[in-house]
Amino acid sequence: MKTYVYSFGGGTADGDGTMKAVLGGKGSGLAEMSKAGVPVPPGFTISTEVCNIFFQNGNKVTPEIDQQMFAALAKLEGQIGKKLGDAENPLLVSVRSGAKFSMPGMMNTILNLGLNDKTVEGLAKRSGNPRFAYDSYRRFIQMFGEVALNIDMEKFDHIFDTRKHKAKTKLDTDLTAADLKAIIDDYKKLVQKETKKPFPQDAREQLTMSRDAVFRSWWNPKAAYYRKMEKIPDDIGTAASVQAMVFGNTGDTSATGVGFTRDPATGEKLFYGEFLVNAQGEDVVAGIRTPQAISELEKIMPAAYAQLREITASLEKHYRDMQDFEFTIEEGKLYMLQTRNGKRTGQAAVRVAVEMKEEGLISKEEAVLRVAPQQLDQLLHPVFDEPSLKKLVNIATGIDASPGAAVGRAAFTAEDAVEMSSSGPVILVRKETTPDDIHGMDVAKGILTAVGGKSSHAAVVARGMGRPCIVGAGAIAIDERGKKFTVTVNKKTVVVKEGDWISMDGTTAKVYLGKAVTRDPDPTSSYFGKLMTWSDEFRGSFGVRANADIPRDAKVARLFGAEGIGLCRTEHMFFAEDRIPFMQAMILARDVKSRTKALQKLLPMQRKDFIGLFQAMDGLPVVIRTLDPPLHEFLPKREDLMVDLARLPHAGKPMKKEMSEKYRIKPGDLKKQLPELLKRVEELHEFNPMLGHRGCRLGITYPEITEMQARAIFEAAAHVAKKGIKVIPEVMIPLAGSVREVEHQKEIIVRVAKEVLAKAGQEKLHYLVGTMIEIPRAVLVADEIAKEAEFFSFGTNDLTQTTMGLSRDDYTKFSGEYETVKVFKADPFASIDQEGVGKMIKMGIELGRKTRPDLEIGICGEHGGDPASVEFCYRVGMNYVSCSPYRIPIARLAAAQAAISGDKTESMRTA
Amino acid sequence: MKTYVYSFGGGTADGDGTMKAVLGGKGSGLAEMSKAGVPVPPGFTISTEVCNIFFQNGNKVTPEIDQQMFAALAKLEGQIGKKLGDAENPLLVSVRSGAKFSMPGMMNTILNLGLNDKTVEGLAKRSGNPRFAYDSYRRFIQMFGEVALNIDMEKFDHIFDTRKHKAKTKLDTDLTAADLKAIIDDYKKLVQKETKKPFPQDAREQLTMSRDAVFRSWWNPKAAYYRKMEKIPDDIGTAASVQAMVFGNTGDTSATGVGFTRDPATGEKLFYGEFLVNAQGEDVVAGIRTPQAISELEKIMPAAYAQLREITASLEKHYRDMQDFEFTIEEGKLYMLQTRNGKRTGQAAVRVAVEMKEEGLISKEEAVLRVAPQQLDQLLHPVFDEPSLKKLVNIATGIDASPGAAVGRAAFTAEDAVEMSSSGPVILVRKETTPDDIHGMDVAKGILTAVGGKSSHAAVVARGMGRPCIVGAGAIAIDERGKKFTVTVNKKTVVVKEGDWISMDGTTAKVYLGKAVTRDPDPTSSYFGKLMTWSDEFRGSFGVRANADIPRDAKVARLFGAEGIGLCRTEHMFFAEDRIPFMQAMILARDVKSRTKALQKLLPMQRKDFIGLFQAMDGLPVVIRTLDPPLHEFLPKREDLMVDLARLPHAGKPMKKEMSEKYRIKPGDLKKQLPELLKRVEELHEFNPMLGHRGCRLGITYPEITEMQARAIFEAAAHVAKKGIKVIPEVMIPLAGSVREVEHQKEIIVRVAKEVLAKAGQEKLHYLVGTMIEIPRAVLVADEIAKEAEFFSFGTNDLTQTTMGLSRDDYTKFSGEYETVKVFKADPFASIDQEGVGKMIKMGIELGRKTRPDLEIGICGEHGGDPASVEFCYRVGMNYVSCSPYRIPIARLAAAQAAISGDKTESMRTA
Repeated sequence: MKTYVYSFGGGTADGDGTMKAVLGGKGSGLAEMSKAGVPVPPGFTISTEVCNIFFQNGNKVTPEIDQQMFAALAKLEGQIGKKLGDAENPLLVSVRSGAKFSMPGMMNTILNLGLNDKTVEGLAKRSGNPRFAYDSYRRFIQMFGEVALNIDMEKFDHIFDTRKHKAKTKLDTDLTAADLKAIIDDYKKLVQKETKKPFPQDAREQLTMSRDAVFRSWWNPKAAYYRKMEKIPDDIGTAASVQAMVFGNTGDTSATGVGFTRDPATGEKLFYGEFLVNAQGEDVVAGIRTPQAISELEKIMPAAYAQLREITASLEKHYRDMQDFEFTIEEGKLYMLQTRNGKRTGQAAVRVAVEMKEEGLISKEEAVLRVAPQQLDQLLHPVFDEPSLKKLVNIATGIDASPGAAVGRAAFTAEDAVEMSSSGPVILVRKETTPDDIHGMDVAKGILTAVGGKSSHAAVVARGMGRPCIVGAGAIAIDERGKKFTVTVNKKTVVVKEGDWISMDGTTAKVYLGKAVTRDPDPTSSYFGKLMTWSDEFRGSFGVRANADIPRDAKVARLFGAEGIGLCRTEHMFFAEDRIPFMQAMILARDVKSRTKALQKLLPMQRKDFIGLFQAMDGLPVVIRTLDPPLHEFLPKREDLMVDLARLPHAGKPMKKEMSEKYRIKPGDLKKQLPELLKRVEELHEFNPMLGHRGCRLGITYPEITEMQARAIFEAAAHVAKKGIKVIPEVMIPLAGSVREVEHQKEIIVRVAKEVLAKAGQEKLHYLVGTMIEIPRAVLVADEIAKEAEFFSFGTNDLTQTTMGLSRDDYTKFSGEYETVKVFKADPFASIDQEGVGKMIKMGIELGRKTRPDLEIGICGEHGGDPASVEFCYRVGMNYVSCSPYRIPIARLAAAQAAISGDKTESMRTA
Repeated sequence: MKTYVYSFGGGTADGDGTMKAVLGGKGSGLAEMSKAGVPVPPGFTISTEVCNIFFQNGNKVTPEIDQQMFAALAKLEGQIGKKLGDAENPLLVSVRSGAKFSMPGMMNTILNLGLNDKTVEGLAKRSGNPRFAYDSYRRFIQMFGEVALNIDMEKFDHIFDTRKHKAKTKLDTDLTAADLKAIIDDYKKLVQKETKKPFPQDAREQLTMSRDAVFRSWWNPKAAYYRKMEKIPDDIGTAASVQAMVFGNTGDTSATGVGFTRDPATGEKLFYGEFLVNAQGEDVVAGIRTPQAISELEKIMPAAYAQLREITASLEKHYRDMQDFEFTIEEGKLYMLQTRNGKRTGQAAVRVAVEMKEEGLISKEEAVLRVAPQQLDQLLHPVFDEPSLKKLVNIATGIDASPGAAVGRAAFTAEDAVEMSSSGPVILVRKETTPDDIHGMDVAKGILTAVGGKSSHAAVVARGMGRPCIVGAGAIAIDERGKKFTVTVNKKTVVVKEGDWISMDGTTAKVYLGKAVTRDPDPTSSYFGKLMTWSDEFRGSFGVRANADIPRDAKVARLFGAEGIGLCRTEHMFFAEDRIPFMQAMILARDVKSRTKALQKLLPMQRKDFIGLFQAMDGLPVVIRTLDPPLHEFLPKREDLMVDLARLPHAGKPMKKEMSEKYRIKPGDLKKQLPELLKRVEELHEFNPMLGHRGCRLGITYPEITEMQARAIFEAAAHVAKKGIKVIPEVMIPLAGSVREVEHQKEIIVRVAKEVLAKAGQEKLHYLVGTMIEIPRAVLVADEIAKEAEFFSFGTNDLTQTTMGLSRDDYTKFSGEYETVKVFKADPFASIDQEGVGKMIKMGIELGRKTRPDLEIGICGEHGGDPASVEFCYRVGMNYVSCSPYRIPIARLAAAQAAISGDKTESMRTA
């Protein structure tokens, strides 16, 4: 005889934890716990196969299945000592769905099954709580009515609300037993009216009807849609678990509670939780009564407490992880209602993983796998003290651009931020940031912008600095001149002026009015250190480098474990206040001679920067990218110039002064020079700057720029090498799309290197010349490009934009709809789009290594700090990832996890 | 004994036309002609192998080779009856390079070899022209000095110029024999000084030294660079051809001339050419004396004339093409100096090909292959009458955006163009055009813009209309308010005002001041018709469709042979003056309800357009693309609004009136509504519109737009079908990058189609829903997309931009440098970048057909009218190309050529 129904409870079970396909997730979990000797309320699970039989058999089960189910019910009644439908001591059960894969909330559940006009009286008597009994009954009628009888829920609600109105009560809990009885009567009348039959009083009929309703819910529209989205097959069906209900509110020998086997906030190994005597589970959560600390239970019910300690300890051992459990004590008897791996803070995750390994409970591999890389963020940035936050109003939500909590006074310009920072913490609030704002961002505790996405200037720079940052908070309307912003909260306008305190969390992207308390992280804890050391053991030759442009960032990166610099954006050096005039002079130059003259002024500055970087990274490689952004980024904005030019004829002295400072033109010269400046800006204006005159395209039209940069790099390298510091420069050519471009730029770099190194007597200094792979054409001809390029670095920001034809800054305008329609699996600018961009990357690696088997390949886009992307990079055989300094620990951990669970791709890297 | 030297001449030759690898292109051509009995001046070719031996042997040949060379020289002397170095009747020879592959101008040539202090006197006497003899000698010393003795050319030039100065002459030809003798003396002194040896008087020494110099020129830097660029191997070497020189200026029995076997302008079969008695070849070209028509030669030298007719006729038969020949008659004896396939106009190319096929000279396949598809442009557009053009000054050169010649008076706004067009032809001159200019472009004979590239709005629209167009003429500075443009020509400023006549040629991209004469084309000539009919016979199932947005264009397209519409851009319908207000209302709508209301107004207009298209294309498929451009394209420009807003406080009545008309806002409402309009425009502003919120991304955020368009399409289809017209709508979803997007939009389209067709009783109407493939991600997941898409159309404009990360409009700013450095083989926006974008297309076709073997695949980018791209599309197995109506004949011919010469890919299309 085939088994369709599997019993569990009383220290035994027909199934076990491996039988998810047959019993569903819930059913197999209950079987596993029972088998492990955990006292769970007993019951039985009707297998997923029955669900399929049900549909094939015209929406009903076979007599054989009914027979097995009632046999299991009889067994359950024996175990629990109550009978379904018994008027004195009724057994109540729940009927729950549960498929192989979790489909949270998509299918139906029925509770309190077994109540009828008679058993409700027995329950009232036995519980000594008639209100509870009638409330349970009216809930059952409502649930059963909706799920099994297809009666519109609103009709029940209408009856309920009418009664509440009559009773003049505000809260459901204020309704008396008499009120509830009246509601029950009306409910039953509704059922009669809608189904032309009375509400079924036979508990066994209730059971079969409920079971069938649960099976039918497999085809709920939302469930079918969810399966389609999650690619869950339609033909695997759901199981139905029938379980005895237990009650913690039958008197003073009953109780209910929740707890953790370790402290979920810190990870410390202590028994943690709370409970209420004579209460139901929801009372603990609802906060109507204040629960007691779990240690008190020992005094009140020592036996149950001892059993709970023992059971939870064994559960932790069984599941080999910190457990989050719920329990009920019914008349002195302990039942475990649920246990699951407990959610925890990042700090706790690290400590639990490390201590469990040291306790011998888990292996070192498991310890490394236990911490979600993203969680490390919490250890590296300040976090809010939750209670202090609860008092504040959330006034806006943007996009989480750089994690961590920050509190400070609002400043609306970089200059103001600098000034205000001397007297206390500052949050810089801007519509969007530009390179001109760097000094303000540097002194700010946090950065908030109204526009832009995760890869906007503000986001990229903030992450590099480790500053909390929220971008694209479109709800706030910034008035820069008025030094304030307004935002509508609950239909009221809130004005935040310069100097007002605000709090912001770059992790949740929420902005609060007022001053919360922050807690500083402790990234130097021994737990963290151990986890990192173990991670590095697994990572093998797969490297983690940092994106860092200045020596200070390089030093931070090294502290966090960077094994080199994967991207130094040389243009960031040009944006500095003391350099931009020379940069602008270079751009405004009309011929090679005057351009070269301006470049000569920049040369010593660049050289100094590189010296600092090389010193900081002694012995480690430093990838330096030649000039990348379009030149107009270094000039004033076209619209500003146009507007100011229109204003100029009517401008008074103050406005002229403002313009003069802004454009570095004497007030008297504005009339003549402003149109000239606009003309040059117009010439450089681009329709799609992302696809314009930038990257190596600049180096090809202005070879003298590449030449100056190469000179600065190699003069710095020679200078540092002479001091006995080991320098490994890797010069990177951006935005190449053909081998010819790489060849052209490499020719200049190699020529300058030869000349400079020979002059310095450093001919043996080893360096590489490589290229970024960031446009699809570079991938398509990667075999050709690898003939010249000695390394590849995937610039996945731009590669994502070009491959998807999607501007990261403009995507924010419709990303909401795209997420709703589920066009992409995840935000492609946060995590590599593996189906699309990922294919490109794989192709590029294959073609590149075909030409040059030992080609060094890395990634330097923002994705380098995203765990799923790091795993991908490991799997496709890259040599390293490079990311912001503050994400290096995350990348190290993610790489280790990839190494432990992934394919063994080590051979690809050492080919 | 190995043969190193191959003689030719006197009706025989050692080699032949197949031996390019051994004799080089020139040497094998000379051998072929000799063998065919053509009287070429005799000579011999030293093989390419000798060149390699020369370099391997320390830059000298072996004695055996020298021996063979002098034997060949002796033979030559016998044939010609003159001896090298003979003082009385000296043989003069030329030594020329010539490799297997043409390397024009990259290597060296020496003429007049054999002259020395003695032979020059003999030549002077025999030619009766001492000046000619001395000039030949001084030229020889100069050439030999530079090429064989490595003396700086400038030093010879200095001597020559000093003498000219002394003689107070302006032209070289004004120098007397005495002047030239003095120059020769100074030249010889220079040689002595530079080489410490006298100028070699031994003619045999001159020959060996010249031969070696020609071999050495294989490694001229420019030659080596050229080989690298053209991928010509370095080890194939050059041959050296030594040929007797003949002179047409030895008296009245000598002559020289040029000619064609058919009229190169019309293609008519008549003997065509001109000649001069007692003259050298260059005299004919120089235009010092007026040459006589070749028919006159019959009267003067009947025998030579008869021989020339006979030879050229046989040459045409031999080479099976119209010949362009040069001849010299030296003392009554005819020599053919050169013959080659003659260049011809498009009209001539067509007539020659068709008539030669009808004469039985070539096959039908050959006739089709004979006409370069691009040449057809000349048959489809007006061309300039060359003499009338020569009188005008070329004032600017831009980018050839749409071919054909146009003459008219300059108009600077669309409105002015319309007004002025009633009284005569107009050229519309704009900085750039926008959809607002359509009516002005429509009435203009030609369009000229200062900015933009080949795919700018002006270019695309002009090509569609068949209007000549030049874009990106950056030299002209347009003052729109002043209604004039200025341009600097030869350091002088030229001002062109409204109403001034200008002439422009969209084929050469040149603009002229003044009024040239144009000749209208005759596309209906019987020659053209025959060629097209033959082409279609070869084309097989490979189709040619048109890009057409309005019924008028569709009709033109059908006249030119379109087999359907491959792209109807529905947005072009929205830009019309009467519709844009509704479009703007739709965009400014803040909720679905008011948006739907505005769309309802557009629905009947769209329906009407589609009815017209369907009627015009009865029985043929019509691909209609749903809304593609970003919405801000339909609104006023952001900068304009910003500037006008800055001006508004000080604006007088006229300016307010202007703003009022521009923005369709009452003057009194400007203050209130202008900021609101700017706000919406700001919201819609994009950093990279090309990668922004457009294509199906609009349809996903505003499904009601797709719905309205689908309704218009199917209501129109049903309406037309009821009249018995066969309608085949193919609805195309733009800019998809994932299957989910196609699925989402298709759902709407299919739902509306079902509803509309059912209502109209046209359920059986067959239609397709497909997608454009225009971003790399769509290619990468083409197998997935093909599950939903019933056809693919490659949008190669955008696919090129995204694959190359290159904005077509911005590329114009640095394309010059990119062409110099030869980054790409051709302009990727004119001809498909086969190495990069081509790989993408192939991948997309393969993946798409993997899922859906009968997937209909076409191309609708601008490349669809480029012959090389059409050939590519044929080869990779597309079903059709789609292009502007005026390029359809070109595409038909190109496709036929691909079919004749290409792989047999027919099976891919019918799989």
